[in-house]
Amino acid sequence: MEKPYYAVIFTSTRTEGDNGYGEMAYDMEVLAKKEQGFIGIESAREEVGITVSYWETLAAITSWKKNMDHVFAQNKGQKEWYSWYKVRICLVEREYEFNTLTP
Amino acid sequence: MEKPYYAVIFTSTRTEGDNGYGEMAYDMEVLAKKEQGFIGIESAREEVGITVSYWETLAAITSWKKNMDHVFAQNKGQKEWYSWYKVRICLVEREYEFNTLTP
Repeated sequence: MEKPYYAVIFTSTRTEGDNGYGEMAYDMEVLAKKEQGFIGIESAREEVGITVSYWETLAAITSWKKNMDHVFAQNKGQKEWYSWYKVRICLVEREYEFNTLTP
Repeated sequence: MEKPYYAVIFTSTRTEGDNGYGEMAYDMEVLAKKEQGFIGIESAREEVGITVSYWETLAAITSWKKNMDHVFAQNKGQKEWYSWYKVRICLVEREYEFNTLTP
């Protein structure tokens, strides 16, 4: 990326049981990918879950947040899925990459 | 955090086998925690591994990077452990938290 862009770091711990979480998480990713200004998303969960999504502008993040809040409200509420979460909105200042395919 | 701070997002895919990776990863975390300006670290791996470390200043990240490069060089080299990785150095601009323990 040549232009500056943003990362949203979403870290969380889950409650017990699925309670529709898997379906919601899938839907959220589908929704995110449709948003204008969406660049990409990466996710992994062990003791803690980390999802990082990448966005072209702060406006795109705000729009996505509204969408996300809407999904959360439509479903069983955040307390069903998360015992804790933290969201950090970050400006990506520098990046570098290592790839065995392009040495 | 009241002061601005930084996040280093390290995303990676692993090569096959451990090859001393587990030990190195543990050592790296111990080392990071000793660095001046270190705030915290969170890590999870499924298909992709995501480690996010948090730092008070860019200088702390530079110092940590030197340490990290040193460990990588001392060990079997990055190609032993990673087929791909990407590092993003980010300024945390905003954050919010949800916690069932402090509603």
